[in-house]
Amino acid sequence: MRKLVVGGAQMGAIQKADSRAHAVERMITLLDQAKAQGCTLVVFPELTLTTFFPRWYMEDQEEIDTWFEREMPGPDTLPLFDRAKEHGVAISFGYAELTPEGQHFNTSILTDRDANIVAKYRKIHLPGHAEFDTERDFQHLEKRYFLPGNMGFPVTRTMGGLFGMCICNDRRWPETYRVMGLQGVEMVMLGYNTPSVNSQKPAEGPEERMFHNKLVMQSGAYQNSTWVVGVAKAGVEDGFPMFGGSLIVNPDGQVVAEAKTENDELIVHECDLDDCTFGKQTIFDFARHRRIEHYGTIASQTGVIEPGE
Amino acid sequence: MRKLVVGGAQMGAIQKADSRAHAVERMITLLDQAKAQGCTLVVFPELTLTTFFPRWYMEDQEEIDTWFEREMPGPDTLPLFDRAKEHGVAISFGYAELTPEGQHFNTSILTDRDANIVAKYRKIHLPGHAEFDTERDFQHLEKRYFLPGNMGFPVTRTMGGLFGMCICNDRRWPETYRVMGLQGVEMVMLGYNTPSVNSQKPAEGPEERMFHNKLVMQSGAYQNSTWVVGVAKAGVEDGFPMFGGSLIVNPDGQVVAEAKTENDELIVHECDLDDCTFGKQTIFDFARHRRIEHYGTIASQTGVIEPGE
Repeated sequence: MRKLVVGGAQMGAIQKADSRAHAVERMITLLDQAKAQGCTLVVFPELTLTTFFPRWYMEDQEEIDTWFEREMPGPDTLPLFDRAKEHGVAISFGYAELTPEGQHFNTSILTDRDANIVAKYRKIHLPGHAEFDTERDFQHLEKRYFLPGNMGFPVTRTMGGLFGMCICNDRRWPETYRVMGLQGVEMVMLGYNTPSVNSQKPAEGPEERMFHNKLVMQSGAYQNSTWVVGVAKAGVEDGFPMFGGSLIVNPDGQVVAEAKTENDELIVHECDLDDCTFGKQTIFDFARHRRIEHYGTIASQTGVIEPGE
Repeated sequence: MRKLVVGGAQMGAIQKADSRAHAVERMITLLDQAKAQGCTLVVFPELTLTTFFPRWYMEDQEEIDTWFEREMPGPDTLPLFDRAKEHGVAISFGYAELTPEGQHFNTSILTDRDANIVAKYRKIHLPGHAEFDTERDFQHLEKRYFLPGNMGFPVTRTMGGLFGMCICNDRRWPETYRVMGLQGVEMVMLGYNTPSVNSQKPAEGPEERMFHNKLVMQSGAYQNSTWVVGVAKAGVEDGFPMFGGSLIVNPDGQVVAEAKTENDELIVHECDLDDCTFGKQTIFDFARHRRIEHYGTIASQTGVIEPGE
């Protein structure tokens, strides 16, 4: 058995006017709760430190850059790292990263239990669009503000197991989980800010979107025999609603913990990494069953080519 | 709108002693029912013509070959093709194929509405094992009796749309659906013979296995914005139980029709192939969102390589 108590720290809304300090204070409150429940790892959402700013159209790069972090930890986030170290709890959270070279990424990090950053991931599947889109009910400008991630989907050996990360839209793509599955991943941590309504199809509301959210995390977990921890930033940000539904999914694809609200809410589960073993050795024994001679287009072809084209 | 009424013709048990004629008679009965309900396409299970023979350990190649078809249609199956042509209904079903060169495949075919075979697929992900396994509660010797498929996952333009096939275990692998999704597939047809209990883990019974069955078909459908029709051979064959749960899943990943029994049972749904379009043009617009520079290992690496190896 390789058990660890994992906390999924769902965050409620962060308004555009809210400061980093405000967000970090709430993260620390959740961290304290997690510590009290025996957690040794806590996963926070995507872009945890601020409102989901990609919904706002901006042209001035200086203004855009105010939403980004130039160092991690920095003055705003150091209290979080200090508290995590004090508690001996590893943390993972997302933020907007501005590198010294001036590149902008949608990023997440993972620390060890001494608050040292041991892994970083930059979001690869950027949804939405790059220019103002008058046909959408609201904007989703991740393709405007971020570059696609350039680090692949790394899996890191830490805390006695193999951990990977992805972010939000990544979770809808089986390739995400599979690239990590091929490195033996045992726990995939992810955060998301997902609107309650489809900006391009008003009829697609929270019930259906939470169904999709659950479906892709359950299948990603089952098909790679890995734990998946998916944590939302939820609630209404300046009038724009996002759903909750934070989940912990076991390597059988079963949901073992689920958030009930759209507020700051901690979900907790004792996860045994050895639960991954049976699936990885039998039905999903990749070495025995996968047939890469037939998978070529997955990695060589981006878009659709219909027969006869 | 490109609507077609699709029938999923679930079959109950076929005992080892039952003849091809017996199986075909039951298939024709289901076909007649489907015609009466307005179906223009009917999907039958994997290895529809006989009992699921890979559960039986055999060494004599002549005996093994008695379970295979050397021509399609042949004398046993011609009545089925004739009835399909008479009805103007396209059919898809699975059988064991023995080629003139002596190669053995787990195969399925699709006809047009004139009973001409327009597509063929040979099962790529062969589960189970090749030698008698004393540690399993029952045998699953597909790796003994079949070669892995050598045709890839073709998608065929027919009946006004883009159709693909896979077989049983294939459905658990996201690569299956993705290779077809990259050809624009609008309906994936599949059949299965799936034991009610995991031969390597008695605690994993029909409820969990039907959950996995549904999970993978729903995610395959949603993540490629395609219809999926999955049809079981179910019931107790010579004491060995297989579950039912035949499904029709829409391109949103929602189950729209589901079998209730473990017997011969027809499920029917009017499927609009244009329902695939929204997902393919937005959230799963592959050309806009996929990042093949990060998917390489999916097609270049078969088994797991952990970090540090």
